[in-house]
Amino acid sequence: MFRATIDADLLKDSVESLSVLVDEARFRISPEGIAVRAVDPANVAMVSLDLAASAFDEFSASDCEIGMDLTKLTDILSLIDKTDKVLIELDDMSQKLSIQIAGLSYTLSLLDPSTMRADPRIPQLELPAEVIMNGKDLRRAVKASEKISDHMLFGIDGEIFYMEAEGDTDRVRVEMSRDQLIDLKPDDVHSLFSLDYLADIVKPVARSNEVLLEFGMDFPIKISTTFANGALKVGYLLAPRIESD
Amino acid sequence: MFRATIDADLLKDSVESLSVLVDEARFRISPEGIAVRAVDPANVAMVSLDLAASAFDEFSASDCEIGMDLTKLTDILSLIDKTDKVLIELDDMSQKLSIQIAGLSYTLSLLDPSTMRADPRIPQLELPAEVIMNGKDLRRAVKASEKISDHMLFGIDGEIFYMEAEGDTDRVRVEMSRDQLIDLKPDDVHSLFSLDYLADIVKPVARSNEVLLEFGMDFPIKISTTFANGALKVGYLLAPRIESD
Amino acid sequence: MFRATIDADLLKDSVESLSVLVDEARFRISPEGIAVRAVDPANVAMVSLDLAASAFDEFSASDCEIGMDLTKLTDILSLIDKTDKVLIELDDMSQKLSIQIAGLSYTLSLLDPSTMRADPRIPQLELPAEVIMNGKDLRRAVKASEKISDHMLFGIDGEIFYMEAEGDTDRVRVEMSRDQLIDLKPDDVHSLFSLDYLADIVKPVARSNEVLLEFGMDFPIKISTTFANGALKVGYLLAPRIESD
Repeated sequence: MFRATIDADLLKDSVESLSVLVDEARFRISPEGIAVRAVDPANVAMVSLDLAASAFDEFSASDCEIGMDLTKLTDILSLIDKTDKVLIELDDMSQKLSIQIAGLSYTLSLLDPSTMRADPRIPQLELPAEVIMNGKDLRRAVKASEKISDHMLFGIDGEIFYMEAEGDTDRVRVEMSRDQLIDLKPDDVHSLFSLDYLADIVKPVARSNEVLLEFGMDFPIKISTTFANGALKVGYLLAPRIESD
Repeated sequence: MFRATIDADLLKDSVESLSVLVDEARFRISPEGIAVRAVDPANVAMVSLDLAASAFDEFSASDCEIGMDLTKLTDILSLIDKTDKVLIELDDMSQKLSIQIAGLSYTLSLLDPSTMRADPRIPQLELPAEVIMNGKDLRRAVKASEKISDHMLFGIDGEIFYMEAEGDTDRVRVEMSRDQLIDLKPDDVHSLFSLDYLADIVKPVARSNEVLLEFGMDFPIKISTTFANGALKVGYLLAPRIESD
Repeated sequence: MFRATIDADLLKDSVESLSVLVDEARFRISPEGIAVRAVDPANVAMVSLDLAASAFDEFSASDCEIGMDLTKLTDILSLIDKTDKVLIELDDMSQKLSIQIAGLSYTLSLLDPSTMRADPRIPQLELPAEVIMNGKDLRRAVKASEKISDHMLFGIDGEIFYMEAEGDTDRVRVEMSRDQLIDLKPDDVHSLFSLDYLADIVKPVARSNEVLLEFGMDFPIKISTTFANGALKVGYLLAPRIESD
């Protein structure tokens, strides 16, 4: 059993957070809310999403799992206003999802979660360096780097956090001191990441004022943020690329 | 003889009403105004346009017919502001049309109306059900249906007008009661239509606050509206599709 | 040695003025400012740009020449706000250019100016007719002509300046009298030009309130304007096309 009402805005943010990495996802629903853990097809990046029951105007659910086609959901949500309310209801008998928005009523077939990829195990990592920064600053650095290269270095040098990309002939570098960041826990580390993935991850994240980056020495980076006063938590884990010398 | 001045806005609406269905059209001009009747190349939909002499700032004409390339006209109108005044004048000798807009002067060759398709005969139909609704509501239902299917059902069930589309696995349905509509003359009927055509027809129609739908049981649908306080009347007749079971 | 700070806005205008004709350019830098002279690959049009030292917030330079990839520069500038300040600095040792904008720092390799095409010699021409007009009016005439033809005639007939394009069947003509222009020095001349080139040239020029056209009888046309109170001067010279009868 599952029946819930939510702001279109917050539902759009949730779906986009997932759809930048995967085309379909298994939603684990419980009385506490909705959780998703998914890995991209190439096993390079992982997304975790936690949408608390408190994020909804109305939320009643027993434990269940549903599989959703995110492309289809994105299509539907593209038609509605940010201020619309969305009523979502699971028909247990038919295993169809009913979505009602401002007079429109959709009935969507679900994917069988048992045929979908198992949830990934989230690795326990010691990531010594931490940066909290504005999402817009992160996106700008990623966009600038994309013009030059296909990978990007995140690192800390003393008290300076830097992001850097190097092309065949050109280079872009952003340096941010402690006072240009919201918070900094320095450590003498750096890691290289694929800009293909970063460009996707940064899209939903850039809407947030506070993005937490956790990284280490040639370790994965964890990029996480929250929306709706913490009711929606989104986190990405992105594998490093090996630096060639 | 034909010489007329009109608001760019109203001329754009007129041309778009036609160009969603046909690439060229025969304009029948008389002292009362301009009338067009045209059928799309596949004979599925028909458009009728009536632009009264009163829609013009200045209008003087004797009976004549001219053939126009609508693609070319759309191109030209795309450059001008909605608030511009357009002076149109027919040179009887050269059979060219002069269009003057804010200092620009176009001279367009006309198509020979005698080589163009004859005007369609508009069938007399008894269409028992009538709905008057906001153009925006109609467009939203059509857009939502396009995401799911390539055809769409219009019907009335008791006092409820509904629009519905069904894909292989998914379904969208809009239900509107009498108080969500401007007017309703109910009848227990429904008909299925091609969304390709509906999507085109809905573009000009959606700008109107009052769109009249007339339909029956597996009969064509008539979609009509007016602009400029009735000085421009636009109507479409769209053939039904046969429902497969 | 070269180090300068400039408004992003003015730098964008400068780069666009060049990039509509050429992909790379040689910048001649001196204590007085920056000058560029370049010809398009087909030798049909020439651009000259003069950016005075006074256009910069800070400008210190000794005589030098640098070759720049304009596509790369346009890419970088597309990311920044019009109100940003841009610091440009040449590293004489590495022959790299450092560009710093709001915390982003780019290091760009330069092209070797000795391998680039030599600066064109600007021909001395007697162009008897002169028109000064608003950039927007010029752009509108060019856009209207593009719909009809691939070349465009500029001419003066008595006290009337006209721009005209003729397609296979259609014609567009703009006539402007002395009071619709900012200035007119009439002469009984006309010349035909390629709309491919005019459409490109008109893009940066259209932002200016005063564009000077100088032309003659089947002679090149000179199209020039200034920005930033004359601190940036941009001029184009476009070869005529031969009129076929």
